[in-house]
Amino acid sequence: MRNLTLLTDLYQLTMMNAYLETGEGNRNCVFDLFYRANDYIEYAVAAGLETAVEYINNLKFTDEDIEYLKSLKLFGDKFFAAIKDFKFTGDLYAVREGEFIFPNEPIVTVKAPLYQAQFIETALLNIINHQTLIATKAAKITHEAKGAVMEFGLRRAQGPDAGVYGARAAVIGGCKSTSNMLAGQKFGIPVSGTLAHSFIMSYENELDAFRAYAEIYPDNCVLLVDTYDTLKSGVPNAIKVFDELKAKGYKPAAIRLDSGDLAYLSKKARKMLDEAGHKDVKIIASGDIDEYILSSLHQQGAKIDLWGIGTKLITSAQNPALGGVYKLAAIEKNGKWTPKIKISDTQEKITNPALKTVYRIYDKDNMAAADLICLKDEVFDTSKPLTIFHPVETWKKTTFTEYSMRNLMVDIIKDGKLVYQMPSLKEIVEYAQKVKSEFWEEYVRLINPHIYKVDLSDKLYELKHLLINEKTEGIYLQSEKKERE
Amino acid sequence: MRNLTLLTDLYQLTMMNAYLETGEGNRNCVFDLFYRANDYIEYAVAAGLETAVEYINNLKFTDEDIEYLKSLKLFGDKFFAAIKDFKFTGDLYAVREGEFIFPNEPIVTVKAPLYQAQFIETALLNIINHQTLIATKAAKITHEAKGAVMEFGLRRAQGPDAGVYGARAAVIGGCKSTSNMLAGQKFGIPVSGTLAHSFIMSYENELDAFRAYAEIYPDNCVLLVDTYDTLKSGVPNAIKVFDELKAKGYKPAAIRLDSGDLAYLSKKARKMLDEAGHKDVKIIASGDIDEYILSSLHQQGAKIDLWGIGTKLITSAQNPALGGVYKLAAIEKNGKWTPKIKISDTQEKITNPALKTVYRIYDKDNMAAADLICLKDEVFDTSKPLTIFHPVETWKKTTFTEYSMRNLMVDIIKDGKLVYQMPSLKEIVEYAQKVKSEFWEEYVRLINPHIYKVDLSDKLYELKHLLINEKTEGIYLQSEKKERE
Repeated sequence: MRNLTLLTDLYQLTMMNAYLETGEGNRNCVFDLFYRANDYIEYAVAAGLETAVEYINNLKFTDEDIEYLKSLKLFGDKFFAAIKDFKFTGDLYAVREGEFIFPNEPIVTVKAPLYQAQFIETALLNIINHQTLIATKAAKITHEAKGAVMEFGLRRAQGPDAGVYGARAAVIGGCKSTSNMLAGQKFGIPVSGTLAHSFIMSYENELDAFRAYAEIYPDNCVLLVDTYDTLKSGVPNAIKVFDELKAKGYKPAAIRLDSGDLAYLSKKARKMLDEAGHKDVKIIASGDIDEYILSSLHQQGAKIDLWGIGTKLITSAQNPALGGVYKLAAIEKNGKWTPKIKISDTQEKITNPALKTVYRIYDKDNMAAADLICLKDEVFDTSKPLTIFHPVETWKKTTFTEYSMRNLMVDIIKDGKLVYQMPSLKEIVEYAQKVKSEFWEEYVRLINPHIYKVDLSDKLYELKHLLINEKTEGIYLQSEKKERE
Repeated sequence: MRNLTLLTDLYQLTMMNAYLETGEGNRNCVFDLFYRANDYIEYAVAAGLETAVEYINNLKFTDEDIEYLKSLKLFGDKFFAAIKDFKFTGDLYAVREGEFIFPNEPIVTVKAPLYQAQFIETALLNIINHQTLIATKAAKITHEAKGAVMEFGLRRAQGPDAGVYGARAAVIGGCKSTSNMLAGQKFGIPVSGTLAHSFIMSYENELDAFRAYAEIYPDNCVLLVDTYDTLKSGVPNAIKVFDELKAKGYKPAAIRLDSGDLAYLSKKARKMLDEAGHKDVKIIASGDIDEYILSSLHQQGAKIDLWGIGTKLITSAQNPALGGVYKLAAIEKNGKWTPKIKISDTQEKITNPALKTVYRIYDKDNMAAADLICLKDEVFDTSKPLTIFHPVETWKKTTFTEYSMRNLMVDIIKDGKLVYQMPSLKEIVEYAQKVKSEFWEEYVRLINPHIYKVDLSDKLYELKHLLINEKTEGIYLQSEKKERE
């Protein structure tokens, strides 16, 4: 991985400088990275941890970096002393890649000296926000697709990284392959592809183009049939070439539809293929598809076996940012920790204080029933009933009697050292499938999904409300005092 | 720039292999990269050419790449012979970065051996699509902003490249600075930033935090005032610190609002600052702003001097893909060129054949009046009147008498060699500003902009319609023939 040390915002560095100059830089602190509820993301699929850890392990200010920073005349000696041989010395906790996560749950928690934790904020957000966004979109799309989904978005991705890491995230979210060779090489993802209109157009006519391609790839002959006219030209010519392949003992693979009314065309094409004796030939569809179009096509009885999905997957078109944030949850001074909270007029935007973790509560069928955000050191006795309540509408309570609990967060880095065995992408994909199988369809369906319960433990709830009262009283006292003055 | 040789789709390689195996690979061809009309992009600001040229100049299949490609067992000897010491040997024409461009106009035209032109398609699209998208969004945002816009989106960008190249594109589109240090270093973009909520929260109280920051940055003291309560706590504390700075002879810089009702809060804060004698202190606003919110805030009389714009700019949130395509326009065989066309049921989606260029027609006030897509070798005599007509609604005609014309496309690469002096980013920004000044407000306004005329030359129109008739007759003849059989 290339050096991304300067992949940060200027203000992280000016704050770092101010912390170090005022002697606050080495205080330990806790930051949580999490996303907030929005209309598009009821659940998210965590992704990006591997890239984030690589980023942290590769941090190094080069001589050129230092020269550039000096040229800005914004930083003092303590700052340059701290970045010389900079090394992350803190702890990092995170949920596994492929984990289902919900609003306000920490995806990553950093416990480190203030100047370090602040410094890595931007890149962590950039990486986790992006990959989690695309894994989530892929999960939604593959949930509706039924057939296998191939990720085809590189040409519309927001730059090279968006294509490469987006392909990885798409696979974590459930895609089976990518068209992206660099992602295939880098992450061992199966690569797939067919042929383009330009190939067809470069030959005298469609039939010549099909024959040329079939000659080279007789064992995996996928023909794009919409260059001129799908039903009048493309499918009949494909059938001709498939007949020829069959006569030579090959098994023709598929046709691809890339435009027009996919429901209508796929049904017609299926009928034509079947009548010509090509019942085994698959139909691949592509062209501006997302989860809503998939659902609509299935309702219309479209006969499509495989999907190539590009733009809307690789950009998460409807909602192109996860909106993850990174918020201070606690800070230490002289060995004493103080929990911290960010107040907001919107109750949902008030942060959760202190070093925390998340437990998933499973019912007796081992299906996910609710998540509980709690203090990191809390212990639960699952032999006793557990009552949880909604963090805002507190009268909404649920009591579990037969249940089990699983801590979602694992130790990734301790005192700057990697303590987690990074799983392979294959293992991550298997893990993601297992996690998804623990959720009832009601929670993941496209339209009006059931809202999954994410509650706070009694202890965390109490601490949070203590701090809210402290902070808000503080403000009003201060302002009343001012008015009296 | 890192090696992005494998940043391509599998099908580019399988097609390349098929071309080479069937002896078609070395035929010369012409491909145009352009975007199609959509609801969000009435005009676009071209960007990404520098990155695209770097990509082409750095193409090199490494031993690992070749090993990976061999492992797929999809490619033959001719393919591996062609990629060993691969070098782009063709021509590349393009509009300059910062140019205003319209649907269907070539942004980049590639004239090269078929296997090369096909191979570079995906990366060219990835780079030009992304950077043009963000430059365009930035142009729309800066047009509405009035005050200077700082690009703050790195944390929400779709991966590292999206942040870094997105910052560059944002500056071409009109942003004045970026928070992104890597972009600042790489492209010499001015960097800007303030401080975060976590900084405020890490101190005992807001006032202590403000004082700590003011001590370190007395000359450039920007204070974030919404951590606890903007009007009751943030602004009064900022005024206190600004008073102290002033007393020491410093000039306080600005406050930043990052949440809440920006129109209301900015007016109140402005009044409080003015009454406290801080008329020169600027107000910066940030927080989920785009061109529509800017327009609305100005209508409400918001008192905001500078803007920090993140998510919606760096992802082009409303429309996160330009949708640029790369289409075959001509192909050569034995020295004879054949123009090519892609037919579609939607007339606007039918491509323009042959090697082309674009002229911009200026009226006697030197303002842009229309664009004309024409054959590359067409010559116009501007001493004679010029009549142009709408390419679909052909009765819509315009005649120019006093006018001038400018060819928008320049030669970038000839026979594989760079023949264009790449301008610096500063020069590109100046060029972009000049181009923008040639367009009446009617064309760039936010609501219902006037549609700019993009017509075809008589020669191109005739050629296109000749090919349409040929192709469609061909299909119907073929299908009628089939029915008769």
